[in-house]
Amino acid sequence: MNRLELTSMILEAKRRKGLRWIDLAKAIGKSREWTAAALLGQMPLSEDDAKRIGQLLDLPAEAVEQLQWIPYRGAGTPQVPTDPVLYRFYEILLVYGPALRALIHEDFGDGIMSAIDFQIKVERVPHPEGDRVRITLDGKFLPYRVF
Amino acid sequence: MNRLELTSMILEAKRRKGLRWIDLAKAIGKSREWTAAALLGQMPLSEDDAKRIGQLLDLPAEAVEQLQWIPYRGAGTPQVPTDPVLYRFYEILLVYGPALRALIHEDFGDGIMSAIDFQIKVERVPHPEGDRVRITLDGKFLPYRVF
Amino acid sequence: MNRLELTSMILEAKRRKGLRWIDLAKAIGKSREWTAAALLGQMPLSEDDAKRIGQLLDLPAEAVEQLQWIPYRGAGTPQVPTDPVLYRFYEILLVYGPALRALIHEDFGDGIMSAIDFQIKVERVPHPEGDRVRITLDGKFLPYRVF
Amino acid sequence: MNRLELTSMILEAKRRKGLRWIDLAKAIGKSREWTAAALLGQMPLSEDDAKRIGQLLDLPAEAVEQLQWIPYRGAGTPQVPTDPVLYRFYEILLVYGPALRALIHEDFGDGIMSAIDFQIKVERVPHPEGDRVRITLDGKFLPYRVF
Amino acid sequence: MNRLELTSMILEAKRRKGLRWIDLAKAIGKSREWTAAALLGQMPLSEDDAKRIGQLLDLPAEAVEQLQWIPYRGAGTPQVPTDPVLYRFYEILLVYGPALRALIHEDFGDGIMSAIDFQIKVERVPHPEGDRVRITLDGKFLPYRVF
Amino acid sequence: MNRLELTSMILEAKRRKGLRWIDLAKAIGKSREWTAAALLGQMPLSEDDAKRIGQLLDLPAEAVEQLQWIPYRGAGTPQVPTDPVLYRFYEILLVYGPALRALIHEDFGDGIMSAIDFQIKVERVPHPEGDRVRITLDGKFLPYRVF
Amino acid sequence: MNRLELTSMILEAKRRKGLRWIDLAKAIGKSREWTAAALLGQMPLSEDDAKRIGQLLDLPAEAVEQLQWIPYRGAGTPQVPTDPVLYRFYEILLVYGPALRALIHEDFGDGIMSAIDFQIKVERVPHPEGDRVRITLDGKFLPYRVF
Amino acid sequence: MNRLELTSMILEAKRRKGLRWIDLAKAIGKSREWTAAALLGQMPLSEDDAKRIGQLLDLPAEAVEQLQWIPYRGAGTPQVPTDPVLYRFYEILLVYGPALRALIHEDFGDGIMSAIDFQIKVERVPHPEGDRVRITLDGKFLPYRVF
Amino acid sequence: MNRLELTSMILEAKRRKGLRWIDLAKAIGKSREWTAAALLGQMPLSEDDAKRIGQLLDLPAEAVEQLQWIPYRGAGTPQVPTDPVLYRFYEILLVYGPALRALIHEDFGDGIMSAIDFQIKVERVPHPEGDRVRITLDGKFLPYRVF
Amino acid sequence: MNRLELTSMILEAKRRKGLRWIDLAKAIGKSREWTAAALLGQMPLSEDDAKRIGQLLDLPAEAVEQLQWIPYRGAGTPQVPTDPVLYRFYEILLVYGPALRALIHEDFGDGIMSAIDFQIKVERVPHPEGDRVRITLDGKFLPYRVF
Repeated sequence: MNRLELTSMILEAKRRKGLRWIDLAKAIGKSREWTAAALLGQMPLSEDDAKRIGQLLDLPAEAVEQLQWIPYRGAGTPQVPTDPVLYRFYEILLVYGPALRALIHEDFGDGIMSAIDFQIKVERVPHPEGDRVRITLDGKFLPYRVF
Repeated sequence: MNRLELTSMILEAKRRKGLRWIDLAKAIGKSREWTAAALLGQMPLSEDDAKRIGQLLDLPAEAVEQLQWIPYRGAGTPQVPTDPVLYRFYEILLVYGPALRALIHEDFGDGIMSAIDFQIKVERVPHPEGDRVRITLDGKFLPYRVF
Repeated sequence: MNRLELTSMILEAKRRKGLRWIDLAKAIGKSREWTAAALLGQMPLSEDDAKRIGQLLDLPAEAVEQLQWIPYRGAGTPQVPTDPVLYRFYEILLVYGPALRALIHEDFGDGIMSAIDFQIKVERVPHPEGDRVRITLDGKFLPYRVF
Repeated sequence: MNRLELTSMILEAKRRKGLRWIDLAKAIGKSREWTAAALLGQMPLSEDDAKRIGQLLDLPAEAVEQLQWIPYRGAGTPQVPTDPVLYRFYEILLVYGPALRALIHEDFGDGIMSAIDFQIKVERVPHPEGDRVRITLDGKFLPYRVF
Repeated sequence: MNRLELTSMILEAKRRKGLRWIDLAKAIGKSREWTAAALLGQMPLSEDDAKRIGQLLDLPAEAVEQLQWIPYRGAGTPQVPTDPVLYRFYEILLVYGPALRALIHEDFGDGIMSAIDFQIKVERVPHPEGDRVRITLDGKFLPYRVF
Repeated sequence: MNRLELTSMILEAKRRKGLRWIDLAKAIGKSREWTAAALLGQMPLSEDDAKRIGQLLDLPAEAVEQLQWIPYRGAGTPQVPTDPVLYRFYEILLVYGPALRALIHEDFGDGIMSAIDFQIKVERVPHPEGDRVRITLDGKFLPYRVF
Repeated sequence: MNRLELTSMILEAKRRKGLRWIDLAKAIGKSREWTAAALLGQMPLSEDDAKRIGQLLDLPAEAVEQLQWIPYRGAGTPQVPTDPVLYRFYEILLVYGPALRALIHEDFGDGIMSAIDFQIKVERVPHPEGDRVRITLDGKFLPYRVF
Repeated sequence: MNRLELTSMILEAKRRKGLRWIDLAKAIGKSREWTAAALLGQMPLSEDDAKRIGQLLDLPAEAVEQLQWIPYRGAGTPQVPTDPVLYRFYEILLVYGPALRALIHEDFGDGIMSAIDFQIKVERVPHPEGDRVRITLDGKFLPYRVF
Repeated sequence: MNRLELTSMILEAKRRKGLRWIDLAKAIGKSREWTAAALLGQMPLSEDDAKRIGQLLDLPAEAVEQLQWIPYRGAGTPQVPTDPVLYRFYEILLVYGPALRALIHEDFGDGIMSAIDFQIKVERVPHPEGDRVRITLDGKFLPYRVF
Repeated sequence: MNRLELTSMILEAKRRKGLRWIDLAKAIGKSREWTAAALLGQMPLSEDDAKRIGQLLDLPAEAVEQLQWIPYRGAGTPQVPTDPVLYRFYEILLVYGPALRALIHEDFGDGIMSAIDFQIKVERVPHPEGDRVRITLDGKFLPYRVF
């Protein structure tokens, strides 16, 4: 069973059981964002968490085992993503990326926002003209080392 | 003068004058994020705003004119960005994109977060172990039309 | 069964049953354009619609299930499409795209035609020198948010 | 003067003179869609039309000459367009292309919609929830020759 | 059975039966060029022709069925073909393409040679210094529509 | 002056003088196809021929000199050509390439059609339903050496 | 069995039997370079040679059959080869290619070294500071036809 | 003056002076292959050699200076070379590369032919059926270090 | 069993047995870096070492056999690696590569650091502000041969 | 003056003045590795350091100004670097990257080596069989945040 098959198995079980991401997240005491990333093949679970997820979703032992491995991240998304939800993030990078870069440099000096010491949140914000998606990226600033 | 030369001229003038993005933003009554995006060649200014920026930065008439054009967005960033600040956003798309997509679908149903009816904010969040960059993406949810 | 196999199964059943797209579309009360897009793996069906299609085409339960998932859109078409029907649309984008962009900007100001709040129609228009294909794209104009 | 410089010169003159595409189109008795495509470097003008446009826009003789050449079409747009207006058309190709192909085949048999014996129209359609862009593609059906 | 497997099955059967392309072509009253293109997955057969080919090559019903489908053309050839026979055609396009374009424009005006209303022929031409391959491309000229 | 500038200079002079490719070809005793390929930067001229072309087109000495150099062939055409005239040849390669390969192998055995010991001809063939472009490729068959 | 599987089967059998390339080459009276190229899927064997190789390596009839087919050459090597042995040849092309081209042109005039009427040899040359690999490429010069 | 301009200047001077590569090579006591590679921008000259070449070709001091720099190798050749002389070497890599790799491994064990401790020779070999190009690659075998 | 499946089998067995890379390395008297590279499909093992690893990990005979083959190196990593651990090395190449090149040239003259006569070491270096990864690359300098 | 021109100016001045990287590094109290990276366009200098470098190299004020800007990192290196010095680092990533990743995971758990809180050193290590290049990469381990 490769990682793609594992992901399919998880999505089918989640659907069949009528579970939401938040249900799975609560079972392991993590955010639903991290939990979704993990179960979609981008983060490893601890042994305990893998077992809990395995019980909730009736996964075979092999799947529980694999969920603990550190995955090859980024596999599965093409260089320019074709799915419209993902493409919009890519477009935001194209259109607002240079501005983000300029503002980070002005606020912090030379360095980057970490994508490792990092967390993300997705919220639904009610709005009279149509609800809005709010995504919060929160990463540690890492200054370039001068040596 | 092409758009890249215009951007260089703006950055040099901004630096020479010791202005920050927020100073330019206040002069035209916009956020500093939108202002930086506009002056970095991704948004058109209104005639009034272009003139104000032109005065602040001592830009020639040709530059004030060009700032009002709707730019070809996305030009200037390679398909996979090499600059580390920009690359981290690309990496976040690779690692967390599938989770964002799954959560948007769960929260809203089939559709996307708009990148047009959209705004973005960059903040410095103090933190004892090192200050953090917080970026808030806020876009209208657009449901797929079924016809 | 992956999505490509599901699509093949649907096309084979449709052919075997002698059904046209309009027949399938009527069964679920949608346009034939949307129905074709859905059954070719680009749109999710509601549970009811999936069941109706399943009955019409004698699909197994697993297929009826999968038809309700939100698909990864855009998978299956190469970056430059090689099939001549599809390539002509790509060529139209190359040849007429800049003109469409200029006219949308002139008519509406800065913004885009939505591909989400969007519908499409294909018609056969009789013509003495050879019938013509008429395709109507109809999308909501989305103005860029200035913030 | 290469074609890109010619296009820039035309756009600047058009703006300076306060002319709309329809004004230029009427001067040469063509549609505004075709006229925009031609002046953006995708179609050649006849000698008469080039002279008329030259007079309207005060173009130098060299520009009037170049407008009559058959251009290398498609130059200037990257393989996946980054500008959001253009990208949406690309996305429509990804999402609805397979359905268009299936319906053209069902309506006409094996063949394509011509992109040469072809015309296009852009309209603003008023709508209470936001005006809409309507684009009509109209191309001759060309059946595959069996030999 | 996907299209590649079908093509392999056909080639193996053709070889086992000792049939040449002209034998298959005569059986369906088409040219050998068109017949080879069809059986290599680029053209659909009529029901009658598919059955005749099926009998000649002892193909199963599923294969006879598939031969009647309109194939996704161009699949199977990489963007720059690596096989030397195919690469030489690509090289001819690189070296002589601009000249062909210039001559078509001079002879016909603005337009293209159709690749749809098109036929092709391959012949062996005896020559004392080594026989030659003669390939004749014959396509309808399609003038660009001015609208 | 680089090769692209030389080509532009030649095309402008040819147009200004009202010369056709056949006129230039006759002046140097070559076919118009070869002559066009050479003047479009794909073939070197002999010293005599370069001088004759230089006189006909009033080219400067530097241009006459450069016409004698062996050019870097293939420069100037993108990997997938965007111009519709050129793209159709690419499409013919995709759609008919495998058939051409199979027929060359059947007629000649293992080997290729040379693109070096090669000539090409473009003709206008009158036809009641619209004149046709006929292109004849004629290359020596080169058998693979077995050693 | 596809060609890659056939190649694997051959390599395993060769290893199991303890045969060297020269042993296989002698059995069919060819050079070891050509024999390796053929058995690695780049050249077709005659019927007799395929049978001899089949006997030596205990290959099944299907494999003996496939060895006689003309392969799609070049499949299996990525556009820039990653294996270091192969990459060094690519690097030699980058570094010495322009010099080779200039010298061939000086020695022979305009034309190429054939890769079809071509043979290659690999030798181990003893050397006190470390033995050397000597590879000899030997191809017929093909002058460009002027027509 | 960038490296491409330097190369052009050298080629023009070499041509004007009627010098062959061997003449330049003898002046600096190197092979003509190495000399051509160096003057085409792939190898640095020693100060003495740069001065000698400068005198022979009447190069300005800036050029003599630049010839001594270590160049960025490989710049100027596209990923898949389009020039037919260069492409044939690429094709040889595709067709014979796997065989070369297998034979080097059999003769030497695991390792590569160096492209650094390497020399190359081009010769014209007379042949009754057409003279041949013989290219000899000679590189030190480098065994993989096991550590 | 292809090489990817072999790698998976090894990783699963290593995990199941609770062995670390150093344990496997000691069993064959090599460094853990080389051992990991070999077992991840980038280096061949000697027959003895393959057997020892086979015993430790309970691998089948076919796996022991395959571990002795010289692998196609570099397969399995995309052109720009998406996994963040690997990408950081790519980024270091982008950011520090030109400096490394300049310093190697200054220290050694024209040449390269060998990637073949090469060894690598990974260490954990304790540090009060967070432990550090230290990687030492150690390769023989290879001067360019002048010939 | 763009960044590439600035880099050229620096390299020419450095050469003309006979300065080594270590001389420039000492003048600003940094390592020669960081200094080379900065002057080759990958790191910004402080105002003081820029002035010192400007004096040492006789740079104009505009250059001293530009050296203080945060550069777009990674520009100037192609996706797969063609220069052999740089390519070897890319190859090391292909061949040893998976092993480095496995060892970092085993030593530290899930996370990466930072390329920002990072330093690098290049040394010449004398060796009887040929001196060696030793490069030390030293980056902080960053554990993935679980949230």
